[in-house]
Amino acid sequence: MSRQSERSAPVAENGLFDRRQFLKAGLGTAGAGGIGLLSATPALSQTRQTWNRFPGRGLSEAYGSPSRYESDVARVGISAQKGTNGSGGCRTPLELLHGIITPSGLHFERHHSGIPDIDPAKHQLLIHGHVKQPLTFSVEALNRYPMVSRIYFLECGGNSGVMVAPEPAQKTCGELHGLVSNSEWTGVPLKLLLEEAGIEPQGKWLIAEGADAALMSRSIPLEKAMDDTIIALYQNGERLRPENGYPMRLLLPGWEGNMSVKWLHRIKVTDQPAMTKDETSRYSDLQSDGSTLLFTYPMGVRSVITNPSAGLTMGAPGLYQISGLAWSGAGKIRQVEISADGGKSWAEADLEVPVLTKSFTRFNTAWQWDGSPSTLMSRAVDETGAMQPTRQVLMANRAPGSGYHYNAIVGWRIENNGEIRNIYA
Amino acid sequence: MSRQSERSAPVAENGLFDRRQFLKAGLGTAGAGGIGLLSATPALSQTRQTWNRFPGRGLSEAYGSPSRYESDVARVGISAQKGTNGSGGCRTPLELLHGIITPSGLHFERHHSGIPDIDPAKHQLLIHGHVKQPLTFSVEALNRYPMVSRIYFLECGGNSGVMVAPEPAQKTCGELHGLVSNSEWTGVPLKLLLEEAGIEPQGKWLIAEGADAALMSRSIPLEKAMDDTIIALYQNGERLRPENGYPMRLLLPGWEGNMSVKWLHRIKVTDQPAMTKDETSRYSDLQSDGSTLLFTYPMGVRSVITNPSAGLTMGAPGLYQISGLAWSGAGKIRQVEISADGGKSWAEADLEVPVLTKSFTRFNTAWQWDGSPSTLMSRAVDETGAMQPTRQVLMANRAPGSGYHYNAIVGWRIENNGEIRNIYA
Repeated sequence: MSRQSERSAPVAENGLFDRRQFLKAGLGTAGAGGIGLLSATPALSQTRQTWNRFPGRGLSEAYGSPSRYESDVARVGISAQKGTNGSGGCRTPLELLHGIITPSGLHFERHHSGIPDIDPAKHQLLIHGHVKQPLTFSVEALNRYPMVSRIYFLECGGNSGVMVAPEPAQKTCGELHGLVSNSEWTGVPLKLLLEEAGIEPQGKWLIAEGADAALMSRSIPLEKAMDDTIIALYQNGERLRPENGYPMRLLLPGWEGNMSVKWLHRIKVTDQPAMTKDETSRYSDLQSDGSTLLFTYPMGVRSVITNPSAGLTMGAPGLYQISGLAWSGAGKIRQVEISADGGKSWAEADLEVPVLTKSFTRFNTAWQWDGSPSTLMSRAVDETGAMQPTRQVLMANRAPGSGYHYNAIVGWRIENNGEIRNIYA
Repeated sequence: MSRQSERSAPVAENGLFDRRQFLKAGLGTAGAGGIGLLSATPALSQTRQTWNRFPGRGLSEAYGSPSRYESDVARVGISAQKGTNGSGGCRTPLELLHGIITPSGLHFERHHSGIPDIDPAKHQLLIHGHVKQPLTFSVEALNRYPMVSRIYFLECGGNSGVMVAPEPAQKTCGELHGLVSNSEWTGVPLKLLLEEAGIEPQGKWLIAEGADAALMSRSIPLEKAMDDTIIALYQNGERLRPENGYPMRLLLPGWEGNMSVKWLHRIKVTDQPAMTKDETSRYSDLQSDGSTLLFTYPMGVRSVITNPSAGLTMGAPGLYQISGLAWSGAGKIRQVEISADGGKSWAEADLEVPVLTKSFTRFNTAWQWDGSPSTLMSRAVDETGAMQPTRQVLMANRAPGSGYHYNAIVGWRIENNGEIRNIYA
């Protein structure tokens, strides 16, 4: 039996193979149309290069940095709000990364009054309001409390908001969808601190306030605070980065990023929400009938193919690995399906382990691109059974321009010259 | 029932509580001897600080960096070999980090001829020897292959080698044991490339060679190459750091770090090992009878308490979280036990999820320190049932000064003035 004949038939139209095909014999090995003939070349003689004729530089800096050849791997879509100092956002270049951890240096940012330069020795967290005993915690004190570590995504409620525009913006995957990142967060369960202060019976909400000049504030239901919410002190092993709330931030797994208040310095226990600017005029969902949905906290299930994606260019026709990210504020990802024919047929993608709750899940599948125009799409289902909507369904009841909580299926159009564009599929 | 009376009795001598006690009611909440009275203070008035009276700085650099207040969180134990340029090592400051991911900027280093400055556009991987078709892969070509992502530890075979000295070195946890780090690695399964080249029947070993000036080389059994070995291109989401083998390295999960050849540029398939310098005179285990164990590849099961640990100082007596890391080259960690009385009694620690194969596992447990001199120890068991040996057992058959593959139980001595020292427990 020849190598070629071992290859399975596609499981969906336009060249999508079984999700585990890459790891079976016969695909990814030499053979007509296989990836081998397209990428590997017969052996060249190994010549001595400039970098191995002499010893290299010595041990790295005390704190290392990427190769100088990777200087184009940077935050993208930097937008500063006019007339403000330090308000705006920037995004993670999703299409340049792999795996599920976002390097802290490339975590998305969204600030409302710049990044405060906080001296941790002078910073304190106050818990007061409807509590038996108001308490204050220094960073040093909090660092002695029991901590938990979990890998969670953090997504801005406004991520992908540009996708509600009448025409699809021609931007990269990161520029369009990069207000989301995934980190290992370590911190103290908020439950422990609230129990120590002692919640009084009328305490039903928390008002969390940041120490930035905006004193950015959000109302948080007590139930979430007593569930999986942590006061995060560490991000990807080290202390929080300044732009991620150094020296401490709230972290509400799965909920819109704005609620995970950065530079946290005050929690007031109240009997009702405060109706702050950022939970009324912003981070709320204006409907086509003129009403507004408030307190729509969890981020919906979604996925995006990061490779191939808009702004990149295909190589020669042949075998490719389609790779992307899926996540849900409701829990774990159960399934991701890929279409290469604009949604007419679907093939199940392979999910990388571990599949974690409220975390990025990396998915991969094998695709034989024949060089013809194709539309790639992905759709995710989470453990609650929720599936990503089409853009048409998602937009049906929205007021024009209402772009929060956008989680519709994303489509990438591949032209026969290899160009890839963002389309409304 | 008062808060205090809800607290469970210790499960081992000298104040060790049940592993989940911190998350139960009654511990970590206000009460005599509880952590609350030791760390939280009654509420102070929140004063405006310099950092929230004016807007902060704008969006971060394109690639961010830690807070200026964290400049002491750096690689430690930097040792350059005399008379060489770029040979030596430096270590991860384990006691300053939390969670399981090591920031790439703090990954340990061990080089044999410095860090080559490789232009990825000119770098190639050659696979030749006993293969049907020798092949060469550019970085760009390899990046199109199917990839997998996994969180794995990487540990130098010489980690903790100083622990075989007659007297315990008075260094920090990172200086003693920090030639180990844990990252998410993404790369191409080596199996795919070897299948594409086609292994001939006499091919049983691989000689892997780096593109540094030392052309550092190791022999690798074909079985491991066809198992979970990858050619890693990404580390913690982004391309490999220069000191970690940019643009590509071998990654042999669970095996001594030296075999995961950095700056990989050549794999030769052979019928026998090459007996290179780094697998004969080095990275081998000299025994007390004069014989040497070669090819002792997997790193043994081990654990270390990172907090409290040598060089740190205890605060006031009271409740503490003991936290540390465990790992094994043979698979997952099954159990970690803690002793606070020098090994006479043991309490099971809580393992943070997810518990991954050949990865750091974070463990935590609650400890009531009464202020008296105490010896903390941890011992790990992996899924094969292997348990960390005592130092006495580990040293029994070793030649003096033979420090590779040191995985004995570590002991920290806490004095009544709060000082913490490294001891041979």
